Amino acid sequence: MFPRKDIWSNGVFAATHALNGDGEMTGTHWIRDLETLNYPIMLTNTGSVGGVMDAVAQYTTAKHPEHQWDYLPVVAETFDGALNDILGRHVHYPEVAAALDSAHDGPVEEGNVGGGTGMLCFRFKCGIGTSSRQLPANEGGYKIGVLVQANFGSREQLTIDGVPVGRELTDQLPTASNRLPIADDGKEGSIIVVVATDAPVSSVQLERIARRAGLGLARTGSTSGNSSGDLFIAFSTANVIPLRGSEKELNIRFLTTDHVEPIFRATVEATEEAILNALTMGKTMEGISGHVAYQLPYDRLATIMAKYGRPLASEPRRLF
Amino acid sequence: MFPRKDIWSNGVFAATHALNGDGEMTGTHWIRDLETLNYPIMLTNTGSVGGVMDAVAQYTTAKHPEHQWDYLPVVAETFDGALNDILGRHVHYPEVAAALDSAHDGPVEEGNVGGGTGMLCFRFKCGIGTSSRQLPANEGGYKIGVLVQANFGSREQLTIDGVPVGRELTDQLPTASNRLPIADDGKEGSIIVVVATDAPVSSVQLERIARRAGLGLARTGSTSGNSSGDLFIAFSTANVIPLRGSEKELNIRFLTTDHVEPIFRATVEATEEAILNALTMGKTMEGISGHVAYQLPYDRLATIMAKYGRPLASEPRRLF
Amino acid sequence: MFPRKDIWSNGVFAATHALNGDGEMTGTHWIRDLETLNYPIMLTNTGSVGGVMDAVAQYTTAKHPEHQWDYLPVVAETFDGALNDILGRHVHYPEVAAALDSAHDGPVEEGNVGGGTGMLCFRFKCGIGTSSRQLPANEGGYKIGVLVQANFGSREQLTIDGVPVGRELTDQLPTASNRLPIADDGKEGSIIVVVATDAPVSSVQLERIARRAGLGLARTGSTSGNSSGDLFIAFSTANVIPLRGSEKELNIRFLTTDHVEPIFRATVEATEEAILNALTMGKTMEGISGHVAYQLPYDRLATIMAKYGRPLASEPRRLF
Amino acid sequence: MFPRKDIWSNGVFAATHALNGDGEMTGTHWIRDLETLNYPIMLTNTGSVGGVMDAVAQYTTAKHPEHQWDYLPVVAETFDGALNDILGRHVHYPEVAAALDSAHDGPVEEGNVGGGTGMLCFRFKCGIGTSSRQLPANEGGYKIGVLVQANFGSREQLTIDGVPVGRELTDQLPTASNRLPIADDGKEGSIIVVVATDAPVSSVQLERIARRAGLGLARTGSTSGNSSGDLFIAFSTANVIPLRGSEKELNIRFLTTDHVEPIFRATVEATEEAILNALTMGKTMEGISGHVAYQLPYDRLATIMAKYGRPLASEPRRLF
Repeated sequence: MFPRKDIWSNGVFAATHALNGDGEMTGTHWIRDLETLNYPIMLTNTGSVGGVMDAVAQYTTAKHPEHQWDYLPVVAETFDGALNDILGRHVHYPEVAAALDSAHDGPVEEGNVGGGTGMLCFRFKCGIGTSSRQLPANEGGYKIGVLVQANFGSREQLTIDGVPVGRELTDQLPTASNRLPIADDGKEGSIIVVVATDAPVSSVQLERIARRAGLGLARTGSTSGNSSGDLFIAFSTANVIPLRGSEKELNIRFLTTDHVEPIFRATVEATEEAILNALTMGKTMEGISGHVAYQLPYDRLATIMAKYGRPLASEPRRLF
Repeated sequence: MFPRKDIWSNGVFAATHALNGDGEMTGTHWIRDLETLNYPIMLTNTGSVGGVMDAVAQYTTAKHPEHQWDYLPVVAETFDGALNDILGRHVHYPEVAAALDSAHDGPVEEGNVGGGTGMLCFRFKCGIGTSSRQLPANEGGYKIGVLVQANFGSREQLTIDGVPVGRELTDQLPTASNRLPIADDGKEGSIIVVVATDAPVSSVQLERIARRAGLGLARTGSTSGNSSGDLFIAFSTANVIPLRGSEKELNIRFLTTDHVEPIFRATVEATEEAILNALTMGKTMEGISGHVAYQLPYDRLATIMAKYGRPLASEPRRLF
Repeated sequence: MFPRKDIWSNGVFAATHALNGDGEMTGTHWIRDLETLNYPIMLTNTGSVGGVMDAVAQYTTAKHPEHQWDYLPVVAETFDGALNDILGRHVHYPEVAAALDSAHDGPVEEGNVGGGTGMLCFRFKCGIGTSSRQLPANEGGYKIGVLVQANFGSREQLTIDGVPVGRELTDQLPTASNRLPIADDGKEGSIIVVVATDAPVSSVQLERIARRAGLGLARTGSTSGNSSGDLFIAFSTANVIPLRGSEKELNIRFLTTDHVEPIFRATVEATEEAILNALTMGKTMEGISGHVAYQLPYDRLATIMAKYGRPLASEPRRLF
Repeated sequence: MFPRKDIWSNGVFAATHALNGDGEMTGTHWIRDLETLNYPIMLTNTGSVGGVMDAVAQYTTAKHPEHQWDYLPVVAETFDGALNDILGRHVHYPEVAAALDSAHDGPVEEGNVGGGTGMLCFRFKCGIGTSSRQLPANEGGYKIGVLVQANFGSREQLTIDGVPVGRELTDQLPTASNRLPIADDGKEGSIIVVVATDAPVSSVQLERIARRAGLGLARTGSTSGNSSGDLFIAFSTANVIPLRGSEKELNIRFLTTDHVEPIFRATVEATEEAILNALTMGKTMEGISGHVAYQLPYDRLATIMAKYGRPLASEPRRLF
């Protein structure tokens, strides 16, 4: 198992998949050929990709000099221009260093946090969401965790557990904004999906896992719009790859391909859920120029779900 | 618009996408680099790919000598070993020539026909299915047609219009078969999706369209299993590319990328529907060794759909 | 090390790369996702791909029934229409079974043999060629073997060890042929490159190795023409992957990426040499319709090489 | 033809290819799916990718507000740590704005300039190099221009016009440097290749053109090392794609595939030459910590070339 303290001196097998390319995730050429993720994954808004990359280089040089000659960090983005002064490029070294210094184990904050602060899904307030699965023992007992920074979807697409919620809940659209020269009808958004597992899988198996994130996205109603940056990254902590090792050969554990199957299923399910959690954990926010995005009204959602034979068991803000 | 009689002397822009690669679709190297589909698309079972390729070469030489020097036909397959004597490789020149000679405009047969004869979906009888969309005039009025040869899915995955039908309809599994050394639990199947449009789109836009077929597949419950050959091909009839022309330049019409968006949506919807039509048009069949696969019972389906707030409007065997 | 007798019950890690796609190599969707080569690699002419695929299926069913349910053989081709009755599709089960039954260890025949019988390079007679490297012990001592079926190149491109031989040796072109409706000026050819190694490398590392075959091809003067099917496959015998194993996990050995470097270099060198061996081992042949392709005149080659400061050490027909 | 003043309001068809991925070129997800290059291409060192991305965003917002909502610039890098204080990340807004403001038509500076200032090839001083071809009128008369930022190669690999120069010129290695924890033997370098043409080609044709840059690289002796970021981008100015147009359809001109062939050849040749020009235009430089890299000695080169039957016609510093 991958020791968290070692993320600056070891890599893990990783892979990426681009379902639609109108977005940025840096560092993917390396991952494709060298097969490893050697850095923290940074999520930010579209305008701050360069600033965050620069700050990661500065941070690495200052705090992890053994890693300082490597400069291919992974920084991904979605567009928060509806609520945020995205042109201001406000994320710099202090914010990046604070994020890296405060990274921790345990529960992950969701909704209006971090890179997800200004994001919208299906024209409701959205942000960061997570979900996970643990396979049963006879399928290996592996864990699959998904984190999304979600910012996509027109209202009418919104589908929860198969129920066409967006067709029933047509009001509470974000307040009109004339500041964006681009379409603001929900088609233009993006989603970054991060899939982590402790299953021993190869980088090709991880690419196949990353592809499945798109199937989970589809279950929420998305058709992956033309202007979306639907970019996925998957990594496994099972095998530890030293960054500067002297080893000539590595001894690696891989699942036989048949045994990857349950991880595909878990990835689809957890991606769907992580998106819904990003959505239901979002909180109504007033942003730049008085622009407001509303949270999904839970009570009305419960009514709709019941109408379609899917009563909600309780009243969590977090669906799953 | 592409004149049907010219399919042996002209090509059309095309692209392919492999959501999962445990299957065969030949001719894809050409399509990736040369950007065109120059042949009829042949769908067969796994054991007959070679025989069909050979028969297409023979047919072309005999009947379209101007095309006879080209030998990169597109032949795709799914596995019908549960019902068919797949090891017998029974498809040869007569069947291939008959299929090519009898190709026609108008409605397409569905269910237990052609390459779909012996296929199963979600462990019900399945086969060939089709669906289409026409965009509204303000989105260009283009048509998008989808044809699938579907042979995938475990029962519990089956989802129709968001309703978890497979969890309610757990009986009528195919009769036990000990003849297959491979798993016969529905995980092992494949789907070939063919997307055709008259929208003027580039081969890259077609690749992006082909990717969306996977999102339609996801809506039916599939997580694209490890042993599936989920292979998609898309083509557009809007631009005609002469195979042996003397032109140095072609004048091509393309949609601006923003206007491709509705085609993505239509592709997702039509793929989902084509799969459901393949399923509901399948008819109970007894195959090799007395193995039986049952058709989806429509009356029980109607009951389940109603329970989930989705009453079926009538009683067609074809859902859409 | 991979036991040769086991090729029907075990797989090896593999990968493919298409430098240019006007050609066919079947079975590549599987290899990309499942990461293994489970079959013999079959090389034939363009017209016989289907027939050979069909024959491999028949052979497998007849002789290796434990493998009979798999039908995704790897069959690749180049175009021998200048010398051969390619429209006749003359390769069927007897030839395929004979080839498979007579496969053996030890030296490989080169020149006008097997799939290479009717091939031309740089408008000289060509065919099958091989070459290999063994890395020094401090680089792991691994072996890298390359086999090509070569059928490409205009005369003026021909470059041997950096010497512009084709600009000096402008005669002895193949006799004029009016039978081909396609260009017969040497631009239209293809090359299949097979790279085998006993180094423990991953499928991604093998894909990177396969890409290097193109760099070896470039050294001979090729610019990979529009109508070429420059398709490469690489595999490693170091890790044995059971086809029907019950193992959940595999223990795999991989080189750390730094140690793959010498294999890249060896692949480039051996590909260049294998092409030159295919060329110099070719023998003058009269084919269909009295069409003649001439072998490279060794004495004149020696004179040219000396003029450019590269005297040939002896007079082998095989350059390396 | 593309009006230079319009680069902020129009795009051009483009494509990228990664021969080896240990490097960074941002903006490639967009280019793959949206098919266009909408930004100037920025070349810098590895440590400054983030800073340059950030500066391009700032510059666009300040000077081209109509383009300010787009944030996916193309920034590529090679590693100049042997001569430069790469950890200092010294390229910021002033340098980026100055570069963009001073961009001009006409001859391009070569050698120790811009991003190429601190680069080495084959362990000689190197940097920026360019070359071009114009096809004859019967092949369309198109122009193909190549610019490289070159920083790769061990000495022994160096090959000029087929002559093994590196094996003859074994001295004048860069002075020893103990400051780099990574290997400094020339294997670790990278090359960025930019191919521009006025030929009317599709984005797929441009991807195929970009692939050919690797064949030109191979002619100089490179085997594309494990630690190289050999990243190529190609674009065509023939079709102008408005960034914010209201057009639903574009009328595009494309070459038929047969007519792309000469562009492949020209790309290979011009890439080879651009690398050699980057090498021969480099000037001896003393960098950080007194580290010195020497320029290729022209007189000794002339002697070697003559020995191999390739006398240099004159004594230009620029070979081609």
